[in-house]
Amino acid sequence: MPELRKDPILGRWVIISTERLKRPSDFNEKKAEKTEAGFCPFDYGNEDKTPPEILAIRKDGSHPNKPGWTLRVVPNKFPALQIEGDLNREGNGMYDRMNGIGAHEVIIETQEHNLLMSSFPVPVMKDVLWTYRERIKDLRRDRRFKYVLIFKNHGEAAGASLEHTHSQLIALPVIPIAVEEELSGSKDYYDYKERCIFCDMIRQEIAEKERLVTQNTDFIAFEPYASRFPFETWILPRRHFSHYEATSDDLLETLANIFLEVIGKLDRALDHPPFNFMLHTTPFTTDQIDHYHWHFEIIPILTKVAGFEWGTGFFINPTPPESAAGYLREIS
Amino acid sequence: MPELRKDPILGRWVIISTERLKRPSDFNEKKAEKTEAGFCPFDYGNEDKTPPEILAIRKDGSHPNKPGWTLRVVPNKFPALQIEGDLNREGNGMYDRMNGIGAHEVIIETQEHNLLMSSFPVPVMKDVLWTYRERIKDLRRDRRFKYVLIFKNHGEAAGASLEHTHSQLIALPVIPIAVEEELSGSKDYYDYKERCIFCDMIRQEIAEKERLVTQNTDFIAFEPYASRFPFETWILPRRHFSHYEATSDDLLETLANIFLEVIGKLDRALDHPPFNFMLHTTPFTTDQIDHYHWHFEIIPILTKVAGFEWGTGFFINPTPPESAAGYLREIS
Repeated sequence: MPELRKDPILGRWVIISTERLKRPSDFNEKKAEKTEAGFCPFDYGNEDKTPPEILAIRKDGSHPNKPGWTLRVVPNKFPALQIEGDLNREGNGMYDRMNGIGAHEVIIETQEHNLLMSSFPVPVMKDVLWTYRERIKDLRRDRRFKYVLIFKNHGEAAGASLEHTHSQLIALPVIPIAVEEELSGSKDYYDYKERCIFCDMIRQEIAEKERLVTQNTDFIAFEPYASRFPFETWILPRRHFSHYEATSDDLLETLANIFLEVIGKLDRALDHPPFNFMLHTTPFTTDQIDHYHWHFEIIPILTKVAGFEWGTGFFINPTPPESAAGYLREIS
Repeated sequence: MPELRKDPILGRWVIISTERLKRPSDFNEKKAEKTEAGFCPFDYGNEDKTPPEILAIRKDGSHPNKPGWTLRVVPNKFPALQIEGDLNREGNGMYDRMNGIGAHEVIIETQEHNLLMSSFPVPVMKDVLWTYRERIKDLRRDRRFKYVLIFKNHGEAAGASLEHTHSQLIALPVIPIAVEEELSGSKDYYDYKERCIFCDMIRQEIAEKERLVTQNTDFIAFEPYASRFPFETWILPRRHFSHYEATSDDLLETLANIFLEVIGKLDRALDHPPFNFMLHTTPFTTDQIDHYHWHFEIIPILTKVAGFEWGTGFFINPTPPESAAGYLREIS
């Protein structure tokens, strides 16, 4: 059973993952495993090599866990958290722990093993974004969960262990500290200004233009003023929405458009970099709120996080966001 | 001139580093550069290839910036922050910035290009630890600075760009957010319990033994209960001290002993892993305090930080600290 342990100083939770247990020798052997060729459990025809599917897009009405799909959601075979059980919060001397209860799912975005997200047709990307919404809506009904993180690791340097394009979700029984900090920071701003901080950022980025990457009727993409990483890019809805799961089908279409445009620009500017993206949205514990605004954060992996970043929480970014945005705007 | 920019939501500062400016093509060329052979500016005899030294240990009374040294401290040739100038805090619409003023120094720990820290004789390690203390004491006198971070990046995966063993320091005009959070978390604990949280951790680790790596008369090394990373190891003085720069010469000796023992164990258990270590100490803005306790955090780089960690601030650790401590204790 995985365990959630709380850092007593910072209040940050850590997952001690027993399903993925590693001894010292496993770290040394890791490279060898990676070069092993061939078999992919996400490939078309290998439906019985994953745990049974939770959701699938099957345009021909075919049967679950058989061919006929264009997108599948399955439980992660080596989940960081376990779906069954109770939290059993308890102390251990001065420390705090609970059982590692949560959901860990994989979104297999396409049948095609070698298709990169930047080459997805719009309808495929729209299906991916639709699936994120439907899974959040469904997991919201489980009263044990307070938050769902949707994320993608693309490329080995970005933490992907399988090549076949996929994203993941983890549903959590606590609101993660990074989300709490964003909620609290944006609440402070709202209390002082009576405006959403993200809406203000959107207004300033549209007015100044220098960090703007692209925009359409419903969405905007820009390099944030205090970008942690070179070519860090955020995508936000231009109108205020706090919860991703409230996104309409119409908006999923314009979101798919801008998402593909941004990923395509990053791919061309940086020669197919490894990247992560994360959906930041409001926890299940509140309904529509005025101070938080859902968005995607996309970070190409071009620099290393090292001692300075770990020790300070600062980041050193060698590419000013104004330059990065300039390069990306030039790419058609 | 490098720039410090504040994230408006989180209050986290980011360094936009102009000295290290990178265009898209620089990231693609990076690998090629790395394999270039040969010349090392930190080698004995190359003293004129670094900026002039700030401090050196020269046992034979030789001249600055000439051979004869066993340890040198020099300004970083490509500093993340610039030593001259004023902060000039100012706004840019809703955003905040200041000039990137600070010190960025390199501690060249030994003449010998190929000597790993785990093979340092005790007097060499003691000199390194003495140097950290002396540099902090000196930089404390500059009223523009509020904090000095001492850190080491060892190995390319840990962010080192030069092989010759060295550590670094960065003096900052603001207290970094990671330090603020530790100070505030440990203050909350102190206000509630009237005890230092680190002293309490030491007591519990000595009593329970299962996460203990080693100890001597003055120091203890253990795997923290909520370790973020496999084999994350902390070294703390057993008696309460808030500021590293108050460490006596006697304690530097026992610290050198335990430091070498821990690094040696990690090296043998994990086959010379890349690692970072960071000194966590109290900012210049306070004198001796009861609630914060200086310590070193050592993190071998064995896993990737990916979308889940960026999106939540959680970490997934596949090696329980009790197992890691067990492996390390077995190594003599």
